[in-house]
Amino acid sequence: MTPYPGQYAATGIFVCFEGGEGGGKSTQSRLLHDRLTEQGYAVRLTHEPGDTPVGKDLRRIVLSPETGALANKTEFLLYAADKAEHVETLVLPALERGEVVITDRYVDSTLAYQGAGRALDRDELEEISRWATGDLRPHLTVVLDLEPEAGLGRFEGRDRIEGEGLEFHQRVRQSFLDLAAHDPEHYLVLDARAPIEAIADQIAARVEPLLVQARRLEP
Amino acid sequence: MTPYPGQYAATGIFVCFEGGEGGGKSTQSRLLHDRLTEQGYAVRLTHEPGDTPVGKDLRRIVLSPETGALANKTEFLLYAADKAEHVETLVLPALERGEVVITDRYVDSTLAYQGAGRALDRDELEEISRWATGDLRPHLTVVLDLEPEAGLGRFEGRDRIEGEGLEFHQRVRQSFLDLAAHDPEHYLVLDARAPIEAIADQIAARVEPLLVQARRLEP
Repeated sequence: MTPYPGQYAATGIFVCFEGGEGGGKSTQSRLLHDRLTEQGYAVRLTHEPGDTPVGKDLRRIVLSPETGALANKTEFLLYAADKAEHVETLVLPALERGEVVITDRYVDSTLAYQGAGRALDRDELEEISRWATGDLRPHLTVVLDLEPEAGLGRFEGRDRIEGEGLEFHQRVRQSFLDLAAHDPEHYLVLDARAPIEAIADQIAARVEPLLVQARRLEP
Repeated sequence: MTPYPGQYAATGIFVCFEGGEGGGKSTQSRLLHDRLTEQGYAVRLTHEPGDTPVGKDLRRIVLSPETGALANKTEFLLYAADKAEHVETLVLPALERGEVVITDRYVDSTLAYQGAGRALDRDELEEISRWATGDLRPHLTVVLDLEPEAGLGRFEGRDRIEGEGLEFHQRVRQSFLDLAAHDPEHYLVLDARAPIEAIADQIAARVEPLLVQARRLEP
């Protein structure tokens, strides 16, 4: 396959929230959505897995404890299928309309959870994930960083992934930090224990210069 | 990714039936199953997609008209996930027990239907399919060859795949023939219009020398 230089949409803004459990991804993605909406931008808040019709089925399969054991490659390929559908039918059309697309999880979560946590070759996972998404990259990925011990308490045993052990989640955390360290132009790493409003302000400040590519709604 | 020299199981026999619609794959795979069972071998008859618990969900998604449009990459990745689960949890364990595993459809169907029929790069599909299956190859693939005009009549509109046009199914047919032509040692192409018993005898004759790797059940 071709290597992945990364594709960045020429219209719209693609912002991604990443990190382990309990770091406030859904809170912060919602706050950014509300702030930009108030400023008059067309904003689409989304998430992986599961924000397409087929994605809802796949989310149920990969996250439900009723599914039982899945082969590691099976689980990975279901996440890849969810991404392919998400990018082609939701993310790309919104970006082409000039919208701000904010997603709670994207390719980095696959690399971190299936690559760092499981027994699969990370380079192969990256190749297939990049193929599935047409190598579309976020203009900005916000990593809400937190020690796994702090984030997991609230969620213990809630689903198949969060039921993994502490060491698994430590490898996941390190994977997010490594991805960010290799591409600081497109990453913002924040301490998830800071006050919610302070985090929101830092994210907004980093997004602000990107907004020249975004479409304002008619008043 | 690594190139694919092909992996052949050292115990058991892996036989695959391929071809378009209406060529008698299910009939012939059943006849071979019954004949080898009568001869005292441990035989497992299976199919793709759908012969694992998660595969049943995926089969419903990819084949049901209710699913509606799926992105081409999504559809392909769901088939790949089905294959990963099928090989790891069903095919490989049976081969390790020395069984004859007979599958109705395998990787060639993906290459033919998604590669020849749709707008995806065939080499990329092959790389991902080989990765999903650990590049496990059948000792013998039987292609039941039939003009699409002859095979489609009975099934028109039955599911999403069979609802495609005639030109699509002609490309699929040619794809199976091309795969067979490149590896005659591991393929047997038969005219699906021949009498059922004559086809079954030809298949059995080709399988017979492979049986040294197969385990007979205790009487």
